[in-house]
Amino acid sequence: MDEPTNLNLYRRLRRRTALILFTTGKTDAISRFVDLVLIALISLNILAVVLESIKDLQALAGPYFYAFEVFSVTVFSIEYIARVWSVVDNPWNPTHTHPIKGRIKYMITWMALIDLIAIAPFYLSFFATDDLRVLRALRLLRIFKLTRYSSAMTLLFQVFREEARTIGAALFVSMLLMFVASTLAFVVEHPVQPKVFSSIPASMYWATVTMTTVGYGDMVPLTPWGKMLGAFIGIIGLGMVALPAGILASGFSSALHRRRAILEEHVEGVMEDGIITIEEKDELNQLVQQLNLSEFDTRAIMHAVRVRQAEEAMETCPHCGKRIHEPDDADTDNPETGA
Amino acid sequence: MDEPTNLNLYRRLRRRTALILFTTGKTDAISRFVDLVLIALISLNILAVVLESIKDLQALAGPYFYAFEVFSVTVFSIEYIARVWSVVDNPWNPTHTHPIKGRIKYMITWMALIDLIAIAPFYLSFFATDDLRVLRALRLLRIFKLTRYSSAMTLLFQVFREEARTIGAALFVSMLLMFVASTLAFVVEHPVQPKVFSSIPASMYWATVTMTTVGYGDMVPLTPWGKMLGAFIGIIGLGMVALPAGILASGFSSALHRRRAILEEHVEGVMEDGIITIEEKDELNQLVQQLNLSEFDTRAIMHAVRVRQAEEAMETCPHCGKRIHEPDDADTDNPETGA
Amino acid sequence: MDEPTNLNLYRRLRRRTALILFTTGKTDAISRFVDLVLIALISLNILAVVLESIKDLQALAGPYFYAFEVFSVTVFSIEYIARVWSVVDNPWNPTHTHPIKGRIKYMITWMALIDLIAIAPFYLSFFATDDLRVLRALRLLRIFKLTRYSSAMTLLFQVFREEARTIGAALFVSMLLMFVASTLAFVVEHPVQPKVFSSIPASMYWATVTMTTVGYGDMVPLTPWGKMLGAFIGIIGLGMVALPAGILASGFSSALHRRRAILEEHVEGVMEDGIITIEEKDELNQLVQQLNLSEFDTRAIMHAVRVRQAEEAMETCPHCGKRIHEPDDADTDNPETGA
Amino acid sequence: MDEPTNLNLYRRLRRRTALILFTTGKTDAISRFVDLVLIALISLNILAVVLESIKDLQALAGPYFYAFEVFSVTVFSIEYIARVWSVVDNPWNPTHTHPIKGRIKYMITWMALIDLIAIAPFYLSFFATDDLRVLRALRLLRIFKLTRYSSAMTLLFQVFREEARTIGAALFVSMLLMFVASTLAFVVEHPVQPKVFSSIPASMYWATVTMTTVGYGDMVPLTPWGKMLGAFIGIIGLGMVALPAGILASGFSSALHRRRAILEEHVEGVMEDGIITIEEKDELNQLVQQLNLSEFDTRAIMHAVRVRQAEEAMETCPHCGKRIHEPDDADTDNPETGA
Repeated sequence: MDEPTNLNLYRRLRRRTALILFTTGKTDAISRFVDLVLIALISLNILAVVLESIKDLQALAGPYFYAFEVFSVTVFSIEYIARVWSVVDNPWNPTHTHPIKGRIKYMITWMALIDLIAIAPFYLSFFATDDLRVLRALRLLRIFKLTRYSSAMTLLFQVFREEARTIGAALFVSMLLMFVASTLAFVVEHPVQPKVFSSIPASMYWATVTMTTVGYGDMVPLTPWGKMLGAFIGIIGLGMVALPAGILASGFSSALHRRRAILEEHVEGVMEDGIITIEEKDELNQLVQQLNLSEFDTRAIMHAVRVRQAEEAMETCPHCGKRIHEPDDADTDNPETGA
Repeated sequence: MDEPTNLNLYRRLRRRTALILFTTGKTDAISRFVDLVLIALISLNILAVVLESIKDLQALAGPYFYAFEVFSVTVFSIEYIARVWSVVDNPWNPTHTHPIKGRIKYMITWMALIDLIAIAPFYLSFFATDDLRVLRALRLLRIFKLTRYSSAMTLLFQVFREEARTIGAALFVSMLLMFVASTLAFVVEHPVQPKVFSSIPASMYWATVTMTTVGYGDMVPLTPWGKMLGAFIGIIGLGMVALPAGILASGFSSALHRRRAILEEHVEGVMEDGIITIEEKDELNQLVQQLNLSEFDTRAIMHAVRVRQAEEAMETCPHCGKRIHEPDDADTDNPETGA
Repeated sequence: MDEPTNLNLYRRLRRRTALILFTTGKTDAISRFVDLVLIALISLNILAVVLESIKDLQALAGPYFYAFEVFSVTVFSIEYIARVWSVVDNPWNPTHTHPIKGRIKYMITWMALIDLIAIAPFYLSFFATDDLRVLRALRLLRIFKLTRYSSAMTLLFQVFREEARTIGAALFVSMLLMFVASTLAFVVEHPVQPKVFSSIPASMYWATVTMTTVGYGDMVPLTPWGKMLGAFIGIIGLGMVALPAGILASGFSSALHRRRAILEEHVEGVMEDGIITIEEKDELNQLVQQLNLSEFDTRAIMHAVRVRQAEEAMETCPHCGKRIHEPDDADTDNPETGA
Repeated sequence: MDEPTNLNLYRRLRRRTALILFTTGKTDAISRFVDLVLIALISLNILAVVLESIKDLQALAGPYFYAFEVFSVTVFSIEYIARVWSVVDNPWNPTHTHPIKGRIKYMITWMALIDLIAIAPFYLSFFATDDLRVLRALRLLRIFKLTRYSSAMTLLFQVFREEARTIGAALFVSMLLMFVASTLAFVVEHPVQPKVFSSIPASMYWATVTMTTVGYGDMVPLTPWGKMLGAFIGIIGLGMVALPAGILASGFSSALHRRRAILEEHVEGVMEDGIITIEEKDELNQLVQQLNLSEFDTRAIMHAVRVRQAEEAMETCPHCGKRIHEPDDADTDNPETGA
């Protein structure tokens, strides 16, 4: 009689772990707490990597940095193992339920790979004898662990994917122009300053720095033709390289419009009977969160729907004087009204 | 019999002061005059702070600057005390009516704190023995007193708040990329120019200057990998860091659309009976000001509504020849028409 | 009998001159030719001013430049006098018909003042003994004479005026931030580089160059706080200073939408009877030009209207099966149909 | 009996060649393969031009570069001749069917000229004795051969043409300001730094670099007036020079909207009978490709249409209980239903 209980406990623990680790909403207090602790630890890690790169600080507090690193990797390792272990019970994604295939499938998802990259450099540093600097810098990739907690970023990537083709076209045209400009700049500037515009790749660096309007000033055209070229691709750059930002912004705006329309339809359905139940409110809140909309949108939409419904309720047929939209009770048994 | 009159006078004076100080519209001539005087004084103060920082001018006209400072602080102090005193009678905001709680509540509003910061440095300078330079510079914060008089700024901040989540997402992604780029730049550039790319924070300064396309040129990559990185984050920067501007602009445009729709609805209601009374006109003007719309919008909307209503009035049913939209008087007693 | 004929001839000549000078459309061949000659002369003048500034060219071809200048001023003077003389017959603007008041009123319009500025420096140069360089440079203002011929610019300025309040708000906030940033930069950088950040005005130049992301690199922060400030206002700058461009672009887009809607309404009216007469076509073309729309818009709108009307023509009432929109001949005598 | 078969074979070969070379879709495997080989070869050519400009590599692998060049030109020459030969059978463009006129007409199209430019420099290099460098650089123009394969670029150019007038207006205003600013900068900066601001053309280079916010720092104003001018045109630049990007982005967004509306109308027609046949699906896919829309759009639109049609099908008249939108079979013989 002992084993089944144990198994039961094991199962319950795994389910609880999954619930805590894979929920990012506000529902569960413990899950929320674990989230906050992990976010804080990731942030402190980034700070540590940044500060450790300052020589004086490294000399002063080296051992403390190392101790913090060991502590962090321990926590992140436990988190990683716990995630892989409990993913079969992930309530939000039922595609990883198989004990072996499901776990392997999970391990090659983006988020799991990021979690692995967050801890791998530490373990690899025992084997690598030199160039620890690169491995140490790789620890900064832990910052990507933060993406798990940002829901607005999902919207950003979605819009980016939707607009990918037009953005790609803008970047392709920019690249064409950049290639042509670099070659021309190389032809006109190389004879005058052979060390600066030494090759087309060097010229490409100058063209990109000019087209993005960064304009460091480390490479500067000296010939009249080169200067005209620089001025020209500066103008083109502002038009073409800045285009993706504009397209993304427009895409955002229309994505929000579409999402607001979906919410409006839902609100209309909910408010048709004039009453909003608690379940309906919960459902609405969930949808708002899912659609990445703000509370402001919800309130504005609810107000608009209320006004429209009130107006519709007042409309009467111009010929018979009856209301076009009957109140709710009459709506269901229309034939009887006629009888 | 003396005291009640005095009290009455005191009350009336306080109400008058509140009306003068807390009204920013065009209705009251004295209020408008006080507004203009204060705006002029704030502007002159900013000019004085800027000019005083020029050594030659400071040497030449130091005492005059000081006299002007004393005069300004006196006026601003009187303004501050008058505001706190009369806020209980503020006709536009009834939440500060309590003589003690209301005044304290007012004193911790943004605008009151800005008013306090505008005069505090002067009084603090008597206690501070050194570093007067910082205190003197703090006087420039008086510029924020101007925000009271700009109504269009309210719209700007509103749009900013509405779009905060998406702007935040864009900035968060930019920050992620900036961190990763700085670390990579540190790894590849530090060995070549250890003094320039001395640490990750230094590298972060370079990455930000590049991503915002400022590109001073004081820190410049020298290695091929560093140059590729710089070109890459320059392109990314133009796309990601410029995104908030695009989102804000789109947000503005749709905020204006929504506001115009509200105005249109109001105009429709007002014009339904074909006559615009003076009260209705006043009400409309107030709404236009409240919605931060221009006169151009009003006129365009009124024209559109007029045309639409004229068209609707002319529509007749093709079968019975009657007007589909009956004139107003017939509209109320429709059943009787049928009888 | 001589004088009336003469007077008649004088009047006809004046009317003809007005028609030639004040028409910018494509209707009149002579007017078009005069326009092209003037545009070419203005362009050549700008080229001359630019080339004359090159010392070698000035030394080489000085007399020719002077001869061209005399020729140009003669032509522009004749143009100016002809415009003032004939403006009373301007067929496009009847507010200048009064022989004296009308002409004075015209002379203080923007375009007339620009015409005057185009010739004044030449005549003034006889009185001025030195600083001819400034007067010579002022000749470049002739470029503004070109604005008369650009109709698309009218749309640009219109949108600018419509969006002036929001653009003003964005610039005001930018200015506030710029002032605060310059003061802070002055406080932190002045002790380290007192010659570079010598005063707040110098600091303001740096802040503006950073916020507009120009980033020359002639003034660069050296302290950590200054660098953070620079990075921060670079980000803010891209968001706030670039905002007007976004607002203008959005404004453009919605202005075009409104104009397209006006055109659509007109096209609908014109196409209601299924036939487009030559007069209607002329009228449409004029409207398209007036609204600054392209031919593409017209065609797209005409197609859309045609499709919609075809669909409407096919709609039948679900109850009686009759067409809701009767063909044209039945439409006029509806009551008789019922009889 | 031999010749007709030969002729037939010749005809069939030509038709096959045309089909392979002028089809860019995914339908034909061989055509797809040829496309990919050509894209790869063009890309390798660009890489070769870029790498050959690096002196060490040129010294090391010169002969290999030359061999690759000969190979590439051979392939591109064969491609060019094959295109000119088979264009009369181009199934997508029937305007080149005439054996002589059609081929000449084709040879002066953009794409054919680009193909010619891709090979001409090689053949010209036999005649040119010096300045081979320019001819060698011209080989980079082969990059434009890639434009044949990018369908999204068509949309970009279309939007550009539609918005050309407003973009032109923005650039014209920028140019006016740039001219005036350069002249003013020349007047104030020339006396202080006569070598840097040596002439108005030099000043124009500075003004453009500032207005595009590139800001190299090689030319920098030193006088207070020059600095104010620089700050001012930096702000104007961000507003005016960045305007085209915003206009293009807005134009993109509204072009996509219009295209989506066309697709929606088509989808509606296709889905009216509730069934989508394979032919309809093919037709839809073709339209989606033609309109440069993504699969995401199609799915979203199909979903929206389905929902709307389902809702419409359920609507019943509140008074008689009949469906307002009758099913399709009843729709054609409405009068009979009433009988």
